[in-house]
Amino acid sequence: LEARLPAEFELIARHFKRLAGQGALGLADDAAVITPPANRQLVISADAMVQGVHFLPDDPPNTIGRKLLRANLSDLAAMGADPLGYLITVSVPKATPDAWFAGFAAGLAEDQAHFGLSLLGGDTTSTPGPISLSATVLGHVAPGAALTRAGARAGDGIFVTGTIGDGALGLRALRGEIADPDGFLASRYQLPQPRLGLALAGIASAAMDVSDGLLQDLAHLCRASGVGAQVQAALVPRSAAARAAGPAWLPLCLTGGDDYELLLAVPASAEAALLAESARAQVPIMRIGRFVADPACFELFDARGQTMTIPQAGWSHF
Amino acid sequence: LEARLPAEFELIARHFKRLAGQGALGLADDAAVITPPANRQLVISADAMVQGVHFLPDDPPNTIGRKLLRANLSDLAAMGADPLGYLITVSVPKATPDAWFAGFAAGLAEDQAHFGLSLLGGDTTSTPGPISLSATVLGHVAPGAALTRAGARAGDGIFVTGTIGDGALGLRALRGEIADPDGFLASRYQLPQPRLGLALAGIASAAMDVSDGLLQDLAHLCRASGVGAQVQAALVPRSAAARAAGPAWLPLCLTGGDDYELLLAVPASAEAALLAESARAQVPIMRIGRFVADPACFELFDARGQTMTIPQAGWSHF
Repeated sequence: LEARLPAEFELIARHFKRLAGQGALGLADDAAVITPPANRQLVISADAMVQGVHFLPDDPPNTIGRKLLRANLSDLAAMGADPLGYLITVSVPKATPDAWFAGFAAGLAEDQAHFGLSLLGGDTTSTPGPISLSATVLGHVAPGAALTRAGARAGDGIFVTGTIGDGALGLRALRGEIADPDGFLASRYQLPQPRLGLALAGIASAAMDVSDGLLQDLAHLCRASGVGAQVQAALVPRSAAARAAGPAWLPLCLTGGDDYELLLAVPASAEAALLAESARAQVPIMRIGRFVADPACFELFDARGQTMTIPQAGWSHF
Repeated sequence: LEARLPAEFELIARHFKRLAGQGALGLADDAAVITPPANRQLVISADAMVQGVHFLPDDPPNTIGRKLLRANLSDLAAMGADPLGYLITVSVPKATPDAWFAGFAAGLAEDQAHFGLSLLGGDTTSTPGPISLSATVLGHVAPGAALTRAGARAGDGIFVTGTIGDGALGLRALRGEIADPDGFLASRYQLPQPRLGLALAGIASAAMDVSDGLLQDLAHLCRASGVGAQVQAALVPRSAAARAAGPAWLPLCLTGGDDYELLLAVPASAEAALLAESARAQVPIMRIGRFVADPACFELFDARGQTMTIPQAGWSHF
């Protein structure tokens, strides 16, 4: 019983029960029971987040669960899947106030409504350490239509959604290292925007979400597809706030992570369809380079066409 | 990037990739893609475990992941579901040695083979705190056949599988508070035995797994079913090791948790079928009492028919 919060059941009833969807059995049984959507494949992703590592101790509880949920939804978006439901585990210190749970659940409620999914189950435990969370998100996709990292071909364009670097800069802004007068960068760190709703099947030859840093993630996609890449740094879309931070922060933007944008490989023949889909879904998409046949080629160019080197610990691993 | 273990990808490839099953995409993509079994419902459960709360710092890494997996499999067993796959999140200190991961994954490999499921995905992160794990397990069941906590009726027998109390005693044995010469109690704490493989559809009117303590979990089942319960303490099956600990430990056996046995409601008309299934599956099942109509009745009797009171913090909550 020391393994459980003393009032775990009341706590679940008070804050989480209203999040429960069809099949969740009111969060009061041993497991959820769902009927999978007919003629669809299931897409499933799990992420963990730890206080002080993935979010800050001062982050509002309202955003913490949403960030976790959105990180998982970004994985679904990268597979071209539609969200269905999620499970969440919450390990918090025993002294965590009720208001923390209220804010945490209220944030999840907002995002459930916005993204169209519901809570299926989970677990609530105490921890002697920092808050530790995990979520598993289920989605669905037409059979065979899931986008993977493995389909990029030489000649395909490299595209990204939205703007790159805001999340990493937002972390520095929250630490007081960068000015962030209107809080835009901080909000991008605390509440990423998963790019659900783009119909990319038949358009993208490969896709992944950018969570570990654009260049590292591009290297993963190249390795999975057996190709190389050439990227024009000047074409990488950055927000007005990121540009205002100055050119010294460009390397961090390209490698910092926490973007939760999509990285796409798109053959030239599908670029017109991609731009039409970008306009329809109102998701900005930019071409930042191209995939090349040589898997050993991984080049970043500046505006003058000079090769750039990004000083970044760990970069040599990739 | 500080959000990831420096060598996360190598680590996943080295230890976890061999656990990956069909649809896991080699653990190298954003999510798993699985085709759900035809004409089945999905059963999904998630649990979290924290070092120092759910397992001990000295527990061998080989058992830690297995305990987590088995706790979830016990939830599937309680729903009458067959296992399909699981996702796991692992948050560990940066200094965690490679041998820890090797032992952790080797334990999971054993249990995957034994219980017939495979790894679909997950996440590996660092934490400044204690090891924090979560797992989500997917199973499947014939449509409408999932057992819930809500179906017990007055007159149904209360049954439990296996023996009760070993896990809670095992924790005390590992702390040196109880003798455990052959390590049986400790092994029951570290490696619970999920009661998969019993065909209970059409036999049990309600089921749940015993994880928070027999009496508390029975109270949950009563509340979900709108019935009361009368339990004969002397009929609650205890192992030879638990009986050898002496009568002073009986209250802990009844309330201590970590049993991962099944608690069943079975109408008299199905008792013969239950006993036949118990023999077929070679899972011992004992009748310990009966459900009664009055939801306010929750009674425990000793061998002389006297009402027993169990001193247990938190008991008044239920």
